[in-house]
Amino acid sequence: MHIDLDRHSGITLTEQIRTSIADRIQSGLLQEREKLPSVRNLSRLLEVSLMTVFHAYEILEQEGLIERIQGKGTFVQGKSTRSSDQHKQDRAEKPSLDWQNTVADYLPRAQYWRMMQTPLLDVAKLSMAALHTSLIPTEWISKQFFQYAQVDPTLLTEYGPVQGDSKLREAVIPYFRERNIMTSPNEIMILNGSQQGIDLVASTFVGPGDCVVLEEPVYPCTIDVFRKRGATIYTIPIDEEGMQVDRLAMLCDSRPPKLIYTNPTFQNPTGTVMSARRRAQLLELAQSYHSIILEDDATSDIYFGSEPPPSIKSMDTHGHVIYLKGISKFISPGCRIGFLIADGTFIARLVGSKGISDLGSPLITQKAILPFFSSNQLKKHLPPLREKLKERRDLVLRILNRSAPKGVHWTKPDGGLNIWITLPHALNADDLHTCALKEGLSFLPGHVCYPTQQQYHHFRISFSYLDLPLLEQSVATLCRLLHDFVQSDRHSQQIMHM
Amino acid sequence: MHIDLDRHSGITLTEQIRTSIADRIQSGLLQEREKLPSVRNLSRLLEVSLMTVFHAYEILEQEGLIERIQGKGTFVQGKSTRSSDQHKQDRAEKPSLDWQNTVADYLPRAQYWRMMQTPLLDVAKLSMAALHTSLIPTEWISKQFFQYAQVDPTLLTEYGPVQGDSKLREAVIPYFRERNIMTSPNEIMILNGSQQGIDLVASTFVGPGDCVVLEEPVYPCTIDVFRKRGATIYTIPIDEEGMQVDRLAMLCDSRPPKLIYTNPTFQNPTGTVMSARRRAQLLELAQSYHSIILEDDATSDIYFGSEPPPSIKSMDTHGHVIYLKGISKFISPGCRIGFLIADGTFIARLVGSKGISDLGSPLITQKAILPFFSSNQLKKHLPPLREKLKERRDLVLRILNRSAPKGVHWTKPDGGLNIWITLPHALNADDLHTCALKEGLSFLPGHVCYPTQQQYHHFRISFSYLDLPLLEQSVATLCRLLHDFVQSDRHSQQIMHM
Repeated sequence: MHIDLDRHSGITLTEQIRTSIADRIQSGLLQEREKLPSVRNLSRLLEVSLMTVFHAYEILEQEGLIERIQGKGTFVQGKSTRSSDQHKQDRAEKPSLDWQNTVADYLPRAQYWRMMQTPLLDVAKLSMAALHTSLIPTEWISKQFFQYAQVDPTLLTEYGPVQGDSKLREAVIPYFRERNIMTSPNEIMILNGSQQGIDLVASTFVGPGDCVVLEEPVYPCTIDVFRKRGATIYTIPIDEEGMQVDRLAMLCDSRPPKLIYTNPTFQNPTGTVMSARRRAQLLELAQSYHSIILEDDATSDIYFGSEPPPSIKSMDTHGHVIYLKGISKFISPGCRIGFLIADGTFIARLVGSKGISDLGSPLITQKAILPFFSSNQLKKHLPPLREKLKERRDLVLRILNRSAPKGVHWTKPDGGLNIWITLPHALNADDLHTCALKEGLSFLPGHVCYPTQQQYHHFRISFSYLDLPLLEQSVATLCRLLHDFVQSDRHSQQIMHM
Repeated sequence: MHIDLDRHSGITLTEQIRTSIADRIQSGLLQEREKLPSVRNLSRLLEVSLMTVFHAYEILEQEGLIERIQGKGTFVQGKSTRSSDQHKQDRAEKPSLDWQNTVADYLPRAQYWRMMQTPLLDVAKLSMAALHTSLIPTEWISKQFFQYAQVDPTLLTEYGPVQGDSKLREAVIPYFRERNIMTSPNEIMILNGSQQGIDLVASTFVGPGDCVVLEEPVYPCTIDVFRKRGATIYTIPIDEEGMQVDRLAMLCDSRPPKLIYTNPTFQNPTGTVMSARRRAQLLELAQSYHSIILEDDATSDIYFGSEPPPSIKSMDTHGHVIYLKGISKFISPGCRIGFLIADGTFIARLVGSKGISDLGSPLITQKAILPFFSSNQLKKHLPPLREKLKERRDLVLRILNRSAPKGVHWTKPDGGLNIWITLPHALNADDLHTCALKEGLSFLPGHVCYPTQQQYHHFRISFSYLDLPLLEQSVATLCRLLHDFVQSDRHSQQIMHM
C-alpha cells in the first residue's frame, strides 16, 4: 500500500492516511476482511508518528470501514452477506499468490471499475449518463465502418499517427470555429474518449504533491485519475453559477494550483452552468498563478434553451486551457473518441505522452465518425437530439414535481443528460440505492463524486439512457421509493424524540 | 523540468541528471537552442550540489548535446539546418506562451513520438516492424466490422466492459491453452495494443525510484514508459540465449527488482530467443526476490523452423508473470488490440487502472477480430504467414550474405520480423541513416534501444513491411551504402594513421 503524503498541503497527515485507506476500501481495492498493516509497520513505512496512524485507524473504525480485533490485527470491515469462512475458502484455493499482497501499487482508488463491476442485469439504469440507442445514428455510423474498411484496407494494416488521423483533425476545425475556438489541426489530438485526455494531462503534468483543484461534486473518474498521480487535491464547491471562483482565489493566495479541472457547461453530475463572469475570472486566476485549466466539455452541444456561454478555451489567449471534447455524450460512446486542444509546448508534450500510452488510437473508428464532421451530418443530428432530450428532461421533471416527497430537491438542468437529487441531510443515498436495486432501478450515489469530505445525501439520475416508457415508469418508482424512504426516516426520528 | 533522482540506486546523481537531460534532448522534448536552467537553479531545484550539476552539464557538452555560452547561459545544441533566426522568428509569433516553459512535466523521453514525427514520404521503410498489407486478411476483417455493426448497433451505443468484451475473452482461451497458458476469461484483459499493457503495468506497480530491469538492447517505447514513471532502470545485456540471467542474479543480490521486463521470443529489436533454461532461471529469480516479470510476447507465433520454447507464463505457478500478447504483429496493427493475462490481485488492480486510463476499449474493434479466434480462421492464417515471412527473411539474408561488406554483422532470426545489424564499432548508424534517407531508405538506428549507455553502431531492419520487389531493391541499396560507409571510414582511418 503506497500512500503519497504531502507535508505542506495544510491537510493533516492523519486525514491524508484516512482518505487514502477509505478510498481503497470504498473502491473495492482493499477487500472485505483483508488485513491492514499494523500501526507500527505503517508508521515506519510512511515515516510518520505512531499516533498519526493510530488516529487515522480510529477515525476509519468510527466510520465503520475497518475493525480492530484484539490480538489479531486490523481488518477491512465486512459488509457483504458472504461469510468469512467463504472468504477463507476462496483464499485457500490459491494460497500461492499471497506474495502479491506485498507488492505496493500506485492505485489508491478505482471507482469507475467498481461501479461497472456490479452486474446490473434486468435493472433500469437511471445511473447511466449515455444516450439511448434510438438517439444515436447507428446505421449511419456502421455504414461508414464498412465503406472505409472496404475502400482503404490500410486502415487495418497501419499504425495511425500518434496525434490522430489528419483528415479528422482538419474536419473538426469548422466545428470548433463555430464555437469560437480558433485552433488548427496541429493543436488537436485524438483520444480514446475524453477520459484518456484527463489521464494524459495528469500523467504528463501532475505528480506527487502537486496541487490540483476539482469542483465539488465532480465526475468521479476524475478523482481516480488525480489520486493515482499522488496529487494533493483541493475542492471548490459549486453553486448555481458553477465553481465558486472567489473561494478559489483565496486558495490560490496560499497554494497556487498547478491544475484546475472544470466541467463548466451542464456539469456532470449536477447539470450546473458556470456563468460567463466566472469563466473570465477563472481564466484570469490561471494567468496570475501560472495554472493549467483542464476544461472538460462533453455536453455543451446539448442545450434546451439558449446557447450556454462560450467555453473558457474560446477566451484563452495565453495557452492556459487544455480543452477536452468527448463525442460519447452526443454522437457515440462505442467509438471511444475524444478531442484534446492545446497550444504551444503543451500539445507536443501531450502527443508524446499519448505515444507512450498506446502508440495512437485505431484509425477505423476515427474514419467512421469523420463524415459526421466533414459533411453536414452533425448539423442535421444535433437539433432533433436536443429536442428529444428536452422532452425527456421535461418528462422527468414533471414526474418529480408531481410525485417526489417534500424535503427532496433537484436541479433543473438547461442541458446535458443528468439531474442531481438532494435528500434531507440525515438520509443516506446508499441506503436508498440498496432499496432501488431490489426494485430493479439503479442511480449514481453522490458520495463517489466527493474527493474529500464525502456527502451521502445526494444522487444523480440520467434521463437519456432508458427508453421512454421505462424512463417514465422508473422515475415513478423512484418517487414511490423516495416517499417510503423519507417517511421511514421521519418515523424513526419521531421514535428517537419520544 | 522534473527529474526523479534516486539516491540509493548506485548510479551517480551526475549520471542520472545527464541521462535525464540527454533523453529529453534526443527525443525532441527539449528543442534545439532551448535554454536550460542555470547550474545554480537546477542544483537548488534538485537539492544537489553545484558540482553535481556542473559535471552533468560538462559531460553533456562533451557529448555535443548542449552548449555553454559565456554570459548568456546553457542551451541545447542546434543540429538542424534551420537557422537560429528562424527559431527566433517562430517564437516571436507566439511570445505569450512562454510561461508554459515554466510548467514542469513528468515526460523525460518520448522516442516513439519523435520517430513517428519525421515525415517519411516516398521512403522505403525498412524501419517499420509491421506486416505488409498483403499479409493481413483485410477483406475478412472489414467484413466483420460491417456485419457486427449491422447486427448489433449497441456496439456503438454502449461503453463496453472495462476488462474487455467477455465473448472475446472466452474465445481466446483455446488459443492460449494450446500454448500451455492455462487461464480463464477473468484473468484476461483486452488492451488498446500491448503498449497500453506496458504503460498500465508501469503506472500501477512502478513509481519513482523503483528498480526496473530491462534487456539491452530493448524495444524503445518500453524505455519511454519506465522513464516516465521515474523508475531506476538497470539493464542486462542479451546474448544468443537471450537475457543474461546470471548477471541479473548478481544485481538481485544488491537491488531486488520490482519488475523485470522481457521479450523472450524473437526479441524486438534483435530477434533473439531466450533459452528454456534461462526462462526457468528467470522465473526462479522472480520467485526468490518477489519480483514481477512482464513478459511481452508479440511474435512467438511467427517461427520459421521449430516452435520456440514455451512462454515464461506457461511455467508460472505463483502469479509472477504478467503476460502481454499483442495482435499487431500477426493479425492487424490497425485494430489496436492486445491481451493481458495476470492472476490474483494483479488482474483486479490492472483492470482498475484500465478504467482510469480510458474507461475501456472500443467494442467494435474487439468484435471484428473475435471470429479470428472463435472460428478456425487463425489456424488457416498462421501457416502461410510463417511461410511468406520466412521467404522474406531468406531473401534479405541472401542479399546481405552476398553484398554486405566485411566487418558488418547481423542476426539470423528464427522468427519475428526483424534483423539486427552491427557495424564496426567506430561507425555511427545515425550517420548511415542520414545517407540512407537521402537514398529513400529508412531503418531504426539502434541507439534508441539502449536505456543507459547508448551504443551507436547497431541498427534494425524489418523484412515484413515492404512489398517484395521494393524489399529486394532496398536491401541491395543498403548494402551499397554500407560499402561506401565502411570504405570511407577505412579511408579516414588510413589518413589518421599516416
